[in-house]
Amino acid sequence: MTRDDTTAASRRLAEWAAAARFDEVPQHHDAILNAWVDSAAVAISGFDTDEFAPVRRFATDAGIDGPGRSQLWGDGSTTSAASAALLNGTACHVMDYDDVHTRIHGHPSTVLFPALLAVAQEVDAPPERFLSGYVAGLGVMTGVSVMFGPDHYTRGWHSTATCGAVGAAAGIAAMLEFDVDGLQQAMAAAASMVGGLRANFGTTMKPLHAGLAARAGVEAVLLVRAGATARAGALELPLGAVSVFGDGSWPGDLDDPAAAVIEAAERAPEQLGLKLYPSCLGTHYAIDAALEVRERLAGERVERITVRIPRGARTALLYDDPTSGLESKFSLPFAVAVALAHGLPGPDRFTDEGAADPRVRALMTRIVVEEDPSGGDAAASMGLRYAEIAANGAEGRTATARVAHPRGSAANPASAADVDAKFRECARRLPDGHARKLLRRLRVTRDLTTLRDLFPLV
Amino acid sequence: MTRDDTTAASRRLAEWAAAARFDEVPQHHDAILNAWVDSAAVAISGFDTDEFAPVRRFATDAGIDGPGRSQLWGDGSTTSAASAALLNGTACHVMDYDDVHTRIHGHPSTVLFPALLAVAQEVDAPPERFLSGYVAGLGVMTGVSVMFGPDHYTRGWHSTATCGAVGAAAGIAAMLEFDVDGLQQAMAAAASMVGGLRANFGTTMKPLHAGLAARAGVEAVLLVRAGATARAGALELPLGAVSVFGDGSWPGDLDDPAAAVIEAAERAPEQLGLKLYPSCLGTHYAIDAALEVRERLAGERVERITVRIPRGARTALLYDDPTSGLESKFSLPFAVAVALAHGLPGPDRFTDEGAADPRVRALMTRIVVEEDPSGGDAAASMGLRYAEIAANGAEGRTATARVAHPRGSAANPASAADVDAKFRECARRLPDGHARKLLRRLRVTRDLTTLRDLFPLV
Repeated sequence: MTRDDTTAASRRLAEWAAAARFDEVPQHHDAILNAWVDSAAVAISGFDTDEFAPVRRFATDAGIDGPGRSQLWGDGSTTSAASAALLNGTACHVMDYDDVHTRIHGHPSTVLFPALLAVAQEVDAPPERFLSGYVAGLGVMTGVSVMFGPDHYTRGWHSTATCGAVGAAAGIAAMLEFDVDGLQQAMAAAASMVGGLRANFGTTMKPLHAGLAARAGVEAVLLVRAGATARAGALELPLGAVSVFGDGSWPGDLDDPAAAVIEAAERAPEQLGLKLYPSCLGTHYAIDAALEVRERLAGERVERITVRIPRGARTALLYDDPTSGLESKFSLPFAVAVALAHGLPGPDRFTDEGAADPRVRALMTRIVVEEDPSGGDAAASMGLRYAEIAANGAEGRTATARVAHPRGSAANPASAADVDAKFRECARRLPDGHARKLLRRLRVTRDLTTLRDLFPLV
Repeated sequence: MTRDDTTAASRRLAEWAAAARFDEVPQHHDAILNAWVDSAAVAISGFDTDEFAPVRRFATDAGIDGPGRSQLWGDGSTTSAASAALLNGTACHVMDYDDVHTRIHGHPSTVLFPALLAVAQEVDAPPERFLSGYVAGLGVMTGVSVMFGPDHYTRGWHSTATCGAVGAAAGIAAMLEFDVDGLQQAMAAAASMVGGLRANFGTTMKPLHAGLAARAGVEAVLLVRAGATARAGALELPLGAVSVFGDGSWPGDLDDPAAAVIEAAERAPEQLGLKLYPSCLGTHYAIDAALEVRERLAGERVERITVRIPRGARTALLYDDPTSGLESKFSLPFAVAVALAHGLPGPDRFTDEGAADPRVRALMTRIVVEEDPSGGDAAASMGLRYAEIAANGAEGRTATARVAHPRGSAANPASAADVDAKFRECARRLPDGHARKLLRRLRVTRDLTTLRDLFPLV
């Protein structure tokens, strides 16, 4: 291969990103605006969590929350773009309630929106450029995840961070109208500024990876803008990102590897999924099935519930008998029982108090979970997952339901109304009127005159 | 293996680091103080380079050089510990004139000293704790490099950054007297905050990797201090640092892998080497041989020079006919000629002007380089390197010299006088008296009452 061949994919990604325009992808506007409202919602809520508090404290201790023009979404105060990206990115992911992307096998918007908005507010970029930057960033993040291969995540890398930093850099550079070489250098710089170990999942590091990746994207672009250099083809060149982060599957025997990457970039918004329940994604299938069953039983007392899931689908669902709010998010019996008992489960259900709710605990004793080995291993493939629930009512009625695409997933997208309801729930802690006004402005972001001071000062 | 076994090495490293004391390793004091003076020297000089300017500009553009108590070594101004670590770490490595470590296959002090001093100045740590932190940090950095294996670097990782961030975090945490669990968490956090691609060598990213690693070390410790969590065993646990960064060679079939890591940590200062010439390390063998030959010929005009090196030893020496100061640092004929013509070559020789020096260019035409294939491939092993020079004088005298351990290398350590001379050369740009006073203070660091305001305000 000539040098040109070995860097063709990142160069074409950069060209594609430079040309990406929000206005030219109307078919993706709903998905993008829902992701934007959703990101704001979970970040606002995330700022208020015990888990985020040490990170906020760190920024002050470390003296990195000095003055700037980029807002912290939780309270509307301002700091530097780099630190705003770090803090908002962390807050957005801290509840693990932010959006997901099936191809990336990670969380895109928690990196992209905080990184993009921080710089957009800093330079007062037009809202249309900001949204175009998201299209570019999401596409590049997805394209890079294709180049790193499906086992990038399996091997231990937190793809949210590794792919996210490169996507964020590309998105910001596109927003600032860098030329293609500058865009490639920003991507190459970001790829040299990021890591993230899955061994740290379950600790503060997991959400921090998202914030650090957002900051890396911001700083990579600001470095290149200030005249620092990076190797334009460092993604694919020997000793580069694909070589150290990749699983070796790319480019494989593809005729035109760059074309496959560009196609993934173009279709990226189709694979965005939102979480409508603040629990582990693996519980959402069963929650939706339980909600259907609940409707059919119409208030009849439930005697016995059988939950059928494919083998491997409960790998992350470790707590059949959860003793805390955190554990309840990773409990299949709890998820089913809470949905049967109360209907749509909001964040207040997955609390220490909610985990001890006597009505829910009583229902949990009547639940049997069966794993079906016939359909292959669902641990390795999200595509195989489903939940099937059969419930016997006390008066003899039986109701069953099967869900393979939970509400909010890419194949069963959330409506704007669903997302707005989630926003209102998450933004409850904002003063009266603030949340309403913010939601209204987020929904018309494209037509705002400026993104500065978007979030209300609390 | 039980969980205890799988995290034994990082736990024992943390225990070792917590107990490391500068005062208890007098046999290493010369090496450590020389590394300290050397790091200050090259950072002061680095602040003044064209290559560093964009990074300094970036810090201002990005608004991350706000107030703090940690000094920038180039001008004595202060900022936050995180940003001071970033800027000093980058400046220290920007000329590639900083120290090297044969086992790490990287540059230790450019990460460790900037990270440690930034926090030491922030909290006003006692100088003895600062130096003990260096002992701990260098040991952990070396121990981690053993765990990542010899091909960690070969695969494309910039080990200066990857091993350096973990070492810096351990050193700072030890300086702040963290307990063993806190030390392990700081190391685990740092390992999740760092990357660095060799594909970016030859760009601003290379020195930035050192600065970013120093900042990661600082921030990892400040995060843990603020209450953030990381998985204590994330170095070795599945999906952890050894798994994604390592080359698979460790622990191999070692009886007690943790003991091997601790031994490497304890002996780490023995493998520190300094550069006494501001050119690529690969030229230093030939420069020293040329200096010997020069002395023997005692001014006699040189007719013909043969330089013999092992095969593979000039992989990085790309410019037989250098056209710039930068290229002259990677030129074997230039290195030999400049040493023959002028004796000890200082930084002023490796400039655009120096590269065009007629006396040097005339000598270069009389140099023949021969690669000896009989001794194996020196590209893969620094240990095989040497340079042998035979020169015929115009009056018939012949002089030969062979150097396998250049001055400054671990096996042929620089004297304090050598390092002080390098310091004076590098610190020439400081106002009169400032450099002298600073050098005096650096040499008695252990006995200073405070490290605050160590560097003169310019």
